[in-house]
Parts: sequence; C-alpha cells; structure tokens
Amino acid sequence: MKFTVDQIATIIQGAVEGDGTQTITGFDKIEEGKSGSISFLSNPKYEAYLYDTDATAVIVASDLVLKSPVKSTLIRVKEPYVAFTILLQKYQEMTAERETGISIHAIIEAGVKVGQSIFVGRFTFIDSHVSIGNSTSIHSHVSIGKNVHIGDNCIIYPGVVIYKDTIIGNNVVIHSNAVIGSDGFGHAPQSDGTYKAIPQLGNVVIEDDVSIGANSTVDRATMGSTYIRKGVKLDNLVQIAHNVDVGAHTAIASQTGISGSTKIGEYCLIAGQVGIAGHLTIAPKTIITGRTGITKSIKEAGQTLGGYPAMNNAEFLKRSALIRRLPELFEQIKNIK
Amino acid sequence: MKFTVDQIATIIQGAVEGDGTQTITGFDKIEEGKSGSISFLSNPKYEAYLYDTDATAVIVASDLVLKSPVKSTLIRVKEPYVAFTILLQKYQEMTAERETGISIHAIIEAGVKVGQSIFVGRFTFIDSHVSIGNSTSIHSHVSIGKNVHIGDNCIIYPGVVIYKDTIIGNNVVIHSNAVIGSDGFGHAPQSDGTYKAIPQLGNVVIEDDVSIGANSTVDRATMGSTYIRKGVKLDNLVQIAHNVDVGAHTAIASQTGISGSTKIGEYCLIAGQVGIAGHLTIAPKTIITGRTGITKSIKEAGQTLGGYPAMNNAEFLKRSALIRRLPELFEQIKNIK
Amino acid sequence: MKFTVDQIATIIQGAVEGDGTQTITGFDKIEEGKSGSISFLSNPKYEAYLYDTDATAVIVASDLVLKSPVKSTLIRVKEPYVAFTILLQKYQEMTAERETGISIHAIIEAGVKVGQSIFVGRFTFIDSHVSIGNSTSIHSHVSIGKNVHIGDNCIIYPGVVIYKDTIIGNNVVIHSNAVIGSDGFGHAPQSDGTYKAIPQLGNVVIEDDVSIGANSTVDRATMGSTYIRKGVKLDNLVQIAHNVDVGAHTAIASQTGISGSTKIGEYCLIAGQVGIAGHLTIAPKTIITGRTGITKSIKEAGQTLGGYPAMNNAEFLKRSALIRRLPELFEQIKNIK
Repeated sequence: MKFTVDQIATIIQGAVEGDGTQTITGFDKIEEGKSGSISFLSNPKYEAYLYDTDATAVIVASDLVLKSPVKSTLIRVKEPYVAFTILLQKYQEMTAERETGISIHAIIEAGVKVGQSIFVGRFTFIDSHVSIGNSTSIHSHVSIGKNVHIGDNCIIYPGVVIYKDTIIGNNVVIHSNAVIGSDGFGHAPQSDGTYKAIPQLGNVVIEDDVSIGANSTVDRATMGSTYIRKGVKLDNLVQIAHNVDVGAHTAIASQTGISGSTKIGEYCLIAGQVGIAGHLTIAPKTIITGRTGITKSIKEAGQTLGGYPAMNNAEFLKRSALIRRLPELFEQIKNIK
Repeated sequence: MKFTVDQIATIIQGAVEGDGTQTITGFDKIEEGKSGSISFLSNPKYEAYLYDTDATAVIVASDLVLKSPVKSTLIRVKEPYVAFTILLQKYQEMTAERETGISIHAIIEAGVKVGQSIFVGRFTFIDSHVSIGNSTSIHSHVSIGKNVHIGDNCIIYPGVVIYKDTIIGNNVVIHSNAVIGSDGFGHAPQSDGTYKAIPQLGNVVIEDDVSIGANSTVDRATMGSTYIRKGVKLDNLVQIAHNVDVGAHTAIASQTGISGSTKIGEYCLIAGQVGIAGHLTIAPKTIITGRTGITKSIKEAGQTLGGYPAMNNAEFLKRSALIRRLPELFEQIKNIK
Repeated sequence: MKFTVDQIATIIQGAVEGDGTQTITGFDKIEEGKSGSISFLSNPKYEAYLYDTDATAVIVASDLVLKSPVKSTLIRVKEPYVAFTILLQKYQEMTAERETGISIHAIIEAGVKVGQSIFVGRFTFIDSHVSIGNSTSIHSHVSIGKNVHIGDNCIIYPGVVIYKDTIIGNNVVIHSNAVIGSDGFGHAPQSDGTYKAIPQLGNVVIEDDVSIGANSTVDRATMGSTYIRKGVKLDNLVQIAHNVDVGAHTAIASQTGISGSTKIGEYCLIAGQVGIAGHLTIAPKTIITGRTGITKSIKEAGQTLGGYPAMNNAEFLKRSALIRRLPELFEQIKNIK
C-alpha cells in the first residue's frame, strides 16, 4: 500500500486537515499508531491517544472538537469507523491475490459442474453431482459430498467438510475445519436403555451472504432442512443442531449452541457461550447477552436478555447485584429475629 | 422411495385406516406434510396439525381418538415414533450407496491389515501396524496413526484424526474433524511459574456402538486409557479429557466438557454446555440438565441435576424462581425495618 | 521399556527401599498398579492404594511414614510427582520414533525455506514464501498459507490449518484440526440491519514453547497481531478472538473463550468453559475457576475469581451457599410478617 493522505481522503470522501501530501503505507490502531500509518478515532474513550499517536494520519469525526494540538494529519468524515472500514475493504480488494484454476492435485468426480473462474486447491475432493458457481474458491483439503450445490463468489477455506445434499448460496464464506451437514444428534431410546440412531435424511441450506467461523458445526435435518438464512454471521465453534432455522441477518458469537428444531428470528444478536434449548422460537431483533441460557420461547421482539434461566437483561443485572448483597440480607434477618 | 401405504403398514406392522393403495415418495414432519409424503404424530402438542396436514399418510397411535375428520390415510401402531424411526431406517438401508475399495489416492503404509469390503477414501493416510475390520468405511482426508485398531462396520467421516494406539470397536461412527487421542492437557508447573509438558503415554479405547459428533475431542490418557464405553453417544464439539471413563449407553449433548480422570456412570443423560470437574464420579442414570456445572461427585443414582454448583434440578428451579423475587424480598426487609 | 528399579532410581536420583534388581516394563496409576510396573504416590488421598498395589515399584516422598507394610519396592525422592514426570519424559525421549524427510505426497510451493531434519507428512500443503526451522515435524493433511514462519522443534499434528502471515516460534505444539489465523468476527452493522465484513488484515503471532489443543481456534487480528505469548498452554476447543493478547505462561483449559482485544496477563490460570468479554485487561496471576464469566477488567493481580458476573471466588461460593438457603429465608420473612 502506498497512498497520499489526499488520495485516501478522496476514497473515503473526507476533508483533510494538515499536510495531505504525506505517504501512508499501513494501518494501525490509534494506540499503536506508527509513522507512515493511518488510524481512526471512533470511540470517545480512545480520544486521549489522538494527541499522542505517531500515526501520520487519523480519520476523525467531522464534528470532533480538538482539546489539544495533534501531530497527525486529520481526515474528517461523518462516520470515522465506517470510513476506515471502507478503506480496509478497498485495500483488501486491491491487494487480494486470488488463485484460479483447478489444482492437478484435486480430485473431482464425474458429473461435477463448475462455473467460470473458480479455484480448487490441492488435495480437495469433490464428489459426484456437485455444482459450483462462478468465481468460487475452494481451498486445500476440502471434502465436498455428493449432490452439493455451491453458488457464486464463495470462499471455502482449508479443511472444511460439506456433507452430501448441502445447498449453499452466493457470497458465502466458510472458515477452516467447519463441518456442514453432519448427522443431527438423534438417537431413539430403546426399552433396555440403549439408543438406536435415527436416520438423518434431511440436509443443510445456507443462503446468500452467510459467514461461518472456524470449527463450527451445522447439522443436517432429520427430515427437511436446517436453514442458515441470508446474511447470517456465525463465529467460531458455534453449534447449530438439526432442523434449526437461523433467521436472516442474525449474528451469533463464538461457542454458542442452538438446540434442535429451534427457530431464531431475523436480525437477532446473540453473544458468545449462549445456549438455547430445542423446539423454541426466538422473536426477531432479540439481543442475547453472553452466557445466557434460554429455555422458553421469546415472543416479544427486540428484547435484551441475560441470565439463566433467561430474563430481561436489566432485571438479570439487578438480581446479580442483589445476590452480591445476600450476606447483608441474611444478617439483617438475623438481627430482626 | 416409492411404496404404497399398505406396503409401509406391513413393514411397521400397523393397521391401515383409509386408502392404502396410495403411493408414498417421501417423509415430512406433520406440520410440513405434503401430498405424497408420510408423517407421524407422537407428541400430543402437535395433534392440531393432524386435521390439517396434506401428508398422504400419517402414523398415529392405536388408541388415538380423532377429534375431527382427517384427509390423510392413517396407519395405527402402538408407538408411532418408534415405527416411524424403523421406517426411516429401512429407507436408509435400501437407499444407502456404500462405496467399497481402497482409493488409489489413499496412502496405506506397510503392515496394515484390512478386512473384507472396506472403503478407504481419497487422500486418507493410514500409518503402519493399523488393523481395520470388515465393512468399515473410512472417508476422505482421514489420518490414522500407528497401531490403531478399528473394528467392523465403522464409519469414519472426512477429516477425522485418530492418533496412534487408539482402539475402536465395532459399529462406531465418528463424524468429521473429530480428534481422537490428542495429548491430555497435562503440564507440570515448575518453580518459576512456567510449565513442562507431562508425556501422555496412554491411549483412547472406544467400545462398540459408539457415535462421536463433528469437531469433538477425546484426549489420550496420561497412563492407561481414556474410555468411551459401549453404546455411548457424543454430540458435536464435546470435550473428553484424559483418563475420563464414560459409562456405557450414556449420551452427552453438544459443547459439554468432562475434565480429566472423571468417571461417568452408565445410562447417564447429559445435556448441552454442561461442565464436569476432574477426578469425580457420577452415579449411573444421572440426568444432567443443560448448562449445569458439577464440582462434586454424585453418589446417588438416578438424580436429575441443574444449576452451578449443581443441585437437585427441582431445587435449582425453585431457587431460580426465588432469585427472580429477590427485589421484592429486599423491599419487604426494608419495610419491616 | 525395560529397566531395573535401581536404574530408575539413578535416573530420578532416589533412594531404593526393597529389591532394586527387579525389572520394570511399564507405568501405571497406583490404583491400577500391576506387576512389572512402576507407579507414584503424591496426593495423600491415594495413600491407601500404596498398601495394596501390585506395582513392582512405587515412587514416594522421602519423608513418608509407612502405616503398614508394602509389597512394592519404594524409591524415595523429594517430590514424587516431579520425579515421575521426569521418568515419563526420559521414557518418551528414548522411545520416540520421529520421522524425518519430506513426503513425496506433500506439496511444497516455490520459495519455501526449510531447515535441517524436518518432517513433512503425506498430503500436506505448504504455500509460497513459508519458512520452517530445524527439526520441526509437520504431519499429514496440514495446510500452511503464504508467508507463514515456523521456528525450530515444532510439532504440527494432522489436519491443522495455519492461515497466511502467521508467525510461530520454537518448540510450539499444535494439535489436530486447530485453526490458526482465521478471520476475526468483525462485521460492521449497516443502517438496514445487515452486516458488512470488516477486512481482517492482521496476523497471529505464537511465541516459543506454546501448546495449542485440538480443534482450538485463534483468529487473526483486524490490524496488528493476535498474540499467544511465550509458554502459553491452550487446551482443546478454546477460542481466542482477534487482537487478543494472552500473556506469557498462562494456561487456559478446554472450551474457554476470550473475546476480541482482551489482554490476559502473565501466569494466569484459567479453567474450562470460562468466558471473558472483549476489550478487557486481566491482571497477571489471576486464577479463574471453571465456568466463570468475566465482564469487567481485573486490575489487582493474583486474585481467584468465580461466578457470573465474576467476583472473588470465596465470595461466589458463599453466595452460592446462601442461594441454596433462599427458601428458608423467604420462609423466615413470611413468619416475621
């Protein structure tokens, strides 16, 4: 990367304050800003770093009032974080070196249909009756089962396993060693206390613009489909059980698990290490804080939940504070008696 | 699949009520029943769907009393869910296309013994002194270390790693990217606060009829063996630490972790995101609800546990309800004073 | 293994009590001690086994006073557990059969630099501009991205994926199917409620003497680096998010997750299933008990924490005991009223 501050200001439509002719060669967080780098200030709690940073340029808000002089050249924009993200994206687009072609060390069975400009990496195996759209990259050591369909512009990172019959839309990113379409955890208890596996005959459907993190697991449905809807973002080590339906544009952070047949609404925000029991319905725009355990359906949209069993998060925090005061309470009762 | 309702009734030993000559081509959940499909009604809370479904046939209980007329042909059996499971299994057996043979793209070292009718997939590596029983399928990208023994009729899905010395029985299923036999987390603290790795010289023993989910991890023992006993079912992302012994016919749901040297009894049912500390003994037939944390041995068999630290689940639920009422309690104390 | 008790006593600098000419052929835990094996007694709660074990030899403390006669030959040392660990290490060194050379079934791109005495296993792919130090072993099915640097004496187990630009020091062990350098979970919310991925342009730096467990995930930084400092030990299924900095000689047990940009101090001990929120600082030598949830920075070093939200662990245990007594408390209030 080698741009002047003025060139960057043009890209992000900002106003330069200071020397715009200086050269930028990298990105830094404001607290680690070095000469030659550009940074941004969005969260007011980091403002002190602005007056101290060695970053050559800093993207700041249009209406920021400086409390002291700064060494850096400023680029003023309406939303510094958004502008910085746009800049990172431009940089990524310009520097990305996408491989194309099918490695001679990949194995592609008969009857596979592939689009234009695809990449298939070393030691990847694609079974029969698979179709792969245009400009999709499938990296090394990927295993793709029979009858899988993958759309355009997808990136499948090394080591991903996609079981048979999975349907994947466009612009889907799946990180390494994630497993899509493994059997749901269905075992029918027998009268002698042992289990008999229930065949898992359904599949997984992943819609457009989904991102799935490393080592996450999405199980196939017993019958029908497990759905990951349009725009869903799953972090690492997330578990999606059989017949779950994750609503469009919902984000789920690491180590959260959704049990079988639960339906998550659209635009939910689910933090890390959350557990949601099976056969529930979670209303749209529900915000679930970290480590919350949900055992009942959530009917009212837009709530923020916490605790286990889950309740309104403000109530959870209040009760947590009262729990800290329990020794005092027991003492008072003793005194009253 | 193409059967008449009458043929299906014969398979599951049921009594037809309605037109038995109709053709069934698929399975559906009752709430999604389509023409041409067969469904079942087991849980009374779904009964309303029975009067509304488009499913051509529905398997119901012998003693079900209809509240309204139904469009579907009924097959009456004693246990609808069991009958439906049997039907799914028959279907799976009939439609399974099992590959056999050893891929020319697999690498099998000298001294490996293989049984009849095995399958070894592309890019799979089997190290020396391994034995593999009859009719076992080892899919693509599997890595099997030295001296591993695998029994008959096993299915090892793509990307599984089995470290050296692991012993696996018959009818074992291991889903993708699970890791069996990695080093136990044993690091001896030194006087300067650093750690020195304790050699993990034991192995993992997996008995017959075990199923292990995707991305789960089972560590080898420091000395001796980590045991997964007959009929155990592990879901995805489960952690089994070194020297753990999971008793026969115990089922463990996703994201649960069992710490080192703990012994789990037979026929336990352990829900998701449970944590069990090390060096404990859990009595047989213990039921552990989701997100429970267990820090002490459970001596009495057959209890249902919840909460953290764990207690009887009914007590946990009662205390959870009382915690919700804490603000009221604090208020009352204030008034009394 | 075939040593006399006397020879072992020399290795661990212990004093023999009994017949030192007997032959030892294996290791056992004291409760499973068999003829021909050596065991150790460190934890007093296992002392009863000493008088009962069939182990040929047992390593015990210099100052242990026997309560009954023992059948085994004793080797007395200052610290039995440390001595036993040393013995296991000697044994491991003597018996380890390290493969060397580069498999003809590995693919190594142009511009890769490799040291002396390395091993690269079957179906491993190493992309361009990678460097690998001396005596490092990279097992089968490993995927190593562009510009990765790996030091000396490392062991990378089968199925590990290391994304581009990762830097790995010396003596690092990474267990199977761990993923290093996947994208951080960064998605900028747009005004219409959808997300746009924030490019993750940083990398992961893993310093010397680190161990990473099976199926763990370490995300690359958005900018700069995610750091796993010298001597850190991560168990299986651990999540380290983008821009986290795990301080030197900190140990983290299974299924714990550290959220983005959090800085963990040196010499911390973090148990399993802990969750730590993002952008926090955890003081050095903090001990975090299992299942603790941390939502605020910990400023004072050396505390032991428990509960969610976290507090001093002794306080947490006290409050847990009081929660058990809540029914009694509600009863008392009712009586007072």
